[in-house]
Amino acid sequence: MMIKNSDETPTAPAIILARPQMGENIGAAARAMQNFGLTDLRLIAPRDGWPNENAQATASGAFDSMPPVRVYEDMTQATADLHFTFATTSRRRDMVKPVYDPQGALEETTQRLNSGQKVGFVFGAERTGLLNDELSQCQAIITFPVNPAFASINLAQSVLLMAYEWGKNEAQCIDHTAMDFGDSFPAKQADIQSFIERLEQDLEERRFFRACNLKPTMLRNIQNIFTRADISDQELRTLHGMLSALRGNKTDK
Amino acid sequence: MMIKNSDETPTAPAIILARPQMGENIGAAARAMQNFGLTDLRLIAPRDGWPNENAQATASGAFDSMPPVRVYEDMTQATADLHFTFATTSRRRDMVKPVYDPQGALEETTQRLNSGQKVGFVFGAERTGLLNDELSQCQAIITFPVNPAFASINLAQSVLLMAYEWGKNEAQCIDHTAMDFGDSFPAKQADIQSFIERLEQDLEERRFFRACNLKPTMLRNIQNIFTRADISDQELRTLHGMLSALRGNKTDK
Repeated sequence: MMIKNSDETPTAPAIILARPQMGENIGAAARAMQNFGLTDLRLIAPRDGWPNENAQATASGAFDSMPPVRVYEDMTQATADLHFTFATTSRRRDMVKPVYDPQGALEETTQRLNSGQKVGFVFGAERTGLLNDELSQCQAIITFPVNPAFASINLAQSVLLMAYEWGKNEAQCIDHTAMDFGDSFPAKQADIQSFIERLEQDLEERRFFRACNLKPTMLRNIQNIFTRADISDQELRTLHGMLSALRGNKTDK
Repeated sequence: MMIKNSDETPTAPAIILARPQMGENIGAAARAMQNFGLTDLRLIAPRDGWPNENAQATASGAFDSMPPVRVYEDMTQATADLHFTFATTSRRRDMVKPVYDPQGALEETTQRLNSGQKVGFVFGAERTGLLNDELSQCQAIITFPVNPAFASINLAQSVLLMAYEWGKNEAQCIDHTAMDFGDSFPAKQADIQSFIERLEQDLEERRFFRACNLKPTMLRNIQNIFTRADISDQELRTLHGMLSALRGNKTDK
């Protein structure tokens, strides 16, 4: 289930639904997307598999005019080709990430798309939302300005609000200046993940995770540090080089 | 079925559903409203009467924390106490009216509310939308920036989008982006710098900066990675611990 690399300039963000339970909601999400011109829908481990008849029923034909939905096993696979992902969440989590409102997220998205990056919006499962491990793989968080006394937005509605902001943004034809990454380019998620895996392995060998029950938290901390940093290809090479040097290997920077 | 006149300054627009057919949609509209702090819901001649069990079912409790829904026979009655009404419509009509997008409509609304006027957003029935006679009673039109090739927003979704714009407007004092530090706190610059100095020293000992002329560039890269990451105190401790582990010292995490 690998994603084809594409040389096309991406024109719109991807919508990624993590472990969606109800086919109806997947269809409603597709319908919401199509209303505002979004067509890249990805599913992570949908509960009832894919394709899904209930999704067809609520999509109002939305699937007919979009590329096939892509299905992945986990977040790592689903976001491998993306450079920047936003996690949508209503609950506050104990993670240090930049937090955007939908409009702010769209401004950030437009800048990144204009510089050739691929961007995704990630939505959690109906009941549970995103798992902490999924959230920690995203670079930023989107929260909706909901009434704290009555926060009850469902999955398809969340997708609708992001799609709507996208549609607004497109209709306004705002031309933002591209982000300046210099000669470098942001690293792909897959490359960041493989650095983190290497780091984890090295730390494991050095018995960094002595207290076993802390390991998941420590790993999430590490994940957060390196996803938030918006690391470039060049910087990732520097990090690999540093790691080799610190391990006492021949440096490979 | 007259509306009581109120001397209070109105604080939010009314939502008016004209001849809604499905109770489910009325409930979903109420739920969408409550998410963004709207509570004045008015119905014009609901097909299945009022109250409606199906509306209760989809409202997720929204009716419990808002004033009673008011029911009217026609547009004239439903909007009698309002000073300005917007009709939402997706189809273009042959009527000369000012046309707003949702955001523009909210700006107009805020100005009017601030001057003591009462404002309403009117939504047509599920299948037919607003009748021309109803539309002609509204001062202005709101259209959503939908994809012309796939315009398929339902009643509750339209209400959601207007409620969302209202909620955004209310929350506007808030910056579009902010870092969520949760229980943690950003590290002081001095602490970040001393971590980077320690890292530099360790790398120096491991002969990472072999080519002397590259050292300034490498150091700048490293500086960039760790300053951009907006590191918290807790994360800085993790980084120190990792560095000790990788060096092969006793870890001090």
